[in-house]
Amino acid sequence: MVDSEPTKREAVERTPDGGPAIILVDPQLGENIGMAARAMLNFGLTDLRLVRPRGAWPNAKAIATAVGAHPVLDRALLFDSTADAVADLQRLAATTARLRDMIKDVQAPRDWAAAAFAEGAAGRRCGVLFGRERAGLHNDDLALADTLLTIPTNPVFSSLNLAQTVLLIGYEWRLAGGARVPSEIRRKGHGAVPASQGELQAFYDHLEDELDRSGFLRIAEKRPRMVRNIRNIFNRAQMTEQEVRTLRGVIVALVEKKGKGG
Amino acid sequence: MVDSEPTKREAVERTPDGGPAIILVDPQLGENIGMAARAMLNFGLTDLRLVRPRGAWPNAKAIATAVGAHPVLDRALLFDSTADAVADLQRLAATTARLRDMIKDVQAPRDWAAAAFAEGAAGRRCGVLFGRERAGLHNDDLALADTLLTIPTNPVFSSLNLAQTVLLIGYEWRLAGGARVPSEIRRKGHGAVPASQGELQAFYDHLEDELDRSGFLRIAEKRPRMVRNIRNIFNRAQMTEQEVRTLRGVIVALVEKKGKGG
Repeated sequence: MVDSEPTKREAVERTPDGGPAIILVDPQLGENIGMAARAMLNFGLTDLRLVRPRGAWPNAKAIATAVGAHPVLDRALLFDSTADAVADLQRLAATTARLRDMIKDVQAPRDWAAAAFAEGAAGRRCGVLFGRERAGLHNDDLALADTLLTIPTNPVFSSLNLAQTVLLIGYEWRLAGGARVPSEIRRKGHGAVPASQGELQAFYDHLEDELDRSGFLRIAEKRPRMVRNIRNIFNRAQMTEQEVRTLRGVIVALVEKKGKGG
Repeated sequence: MVDSEPTKREAVERTPDGGPAIILVDPQLGENIGMAARAMLNFGLTDLRLVRPRGAWPNAKAIATAVGAHPVLDRALLFDSTADAVADLQRLAATTARLRDMIKDVQAPRDWAAAAFAEGAAGRRCGVLFGRERAGLHNDDLALADTLLTIPTNPVFSSLNLAQTVLLIGYEWRLAGGARVPSEIRRKGHGAVPASQGELQAFYDHLEDELDRSGFLRIAEKRPRMVRNIRNIFNRAQMTEQEVRTLRGVIVALVEKKGKGG
């Protein structure tokens, strides 16, 4: 029931126009999945990924509420973990209503969409994470993202339905068609390939493995928060593939130092 | 069951911020009315008017799907005709997916919202007509409006749910008023102190010193460029004081590792 990780090529083929993948984490109601699929197709998005959807899949209520957008449901990919679902993506935003105690770039959908459209046009893979109804995303999922997305709702009544949040993201992405190349891409220069989530995760695994061995993460109850804080620093840097390779070399060099010259 | 025509004064009091009235003509499903009310309140709209809603009113399904936006339902006004429902309004737009054979100004919601917000701020009353699910508005209703609104959806899958159309209109209206993610939360975190250049420099010195000792930077002609590349990664992360301290701990831990357990 769980698909294998999509290759970048497959993922691009699934959304020929370079639109972002929509990743629903722990969706509880088939109706919301169906309405999200409909909202996606309304704005030309087709790459739907589901992490641990509740109940059986395919889901009859999802099909009913998709109202003709069933091709999006048919090609939806299922995953056991958020990390697997985003492994091929080079930019990852996470929607959140509450701004947690996390040090991370926060954007409104319009600003995000301008950047995402340009990234997609340049052949890069973007995605947006949506959390479980009411509860939202876990901190561990938020830590995967380079950007937090918050919709500027009425502060005294801010709770949006899951499918409506997907709708607004799709709407802004579609309208972003005329967006200029964002400053961030210009800054990085031409030809620099952003690291994929899979490459970043391998880097984090490498770093955390060494930090475990060193005892830096030895206090069990503090470990999750420390790991998240460290990942957030590097996520914000939006590294290229080459930069991730460089930092992995740095880790090796620091660890090996004692053995060589120390 | 049908309220009298609201005076302009009453209508303005009902939406103190001058937001547009949302007029649903012949809504068939209570769920859609409830979801529309929720979407309205999400973006600060409170003036809901219903023309010939199907079935009894109040409607239990509407209340259930409003999820807390029942104050909007409670104050909704009911009318027997569209003309009565819009009698107090000075500007009226009508949503339509199909562009009929009508000579009328057609706008996208974003352009409309900019104008509507300015009208509202100037004390004028605006409204938006939404037609019956699937069938849309009758030509007689469209003829009441000064502007047609069309949402730029995917041409091959353009049918939006009624409440979602309301959502997009409310969203654009709110953004037209300058609502955005407040700058204090866009710039990361609560009370987090950005690292000073001095703290960053001490961090770079520490890291580069260890990398020199490890041999990682041993090729003299490459060293300046490698150092710059590494600094760029961390500069982009815009770290806080605490994060710099964390990474200095990481360096110490990695370097000491061999001595302790390796």
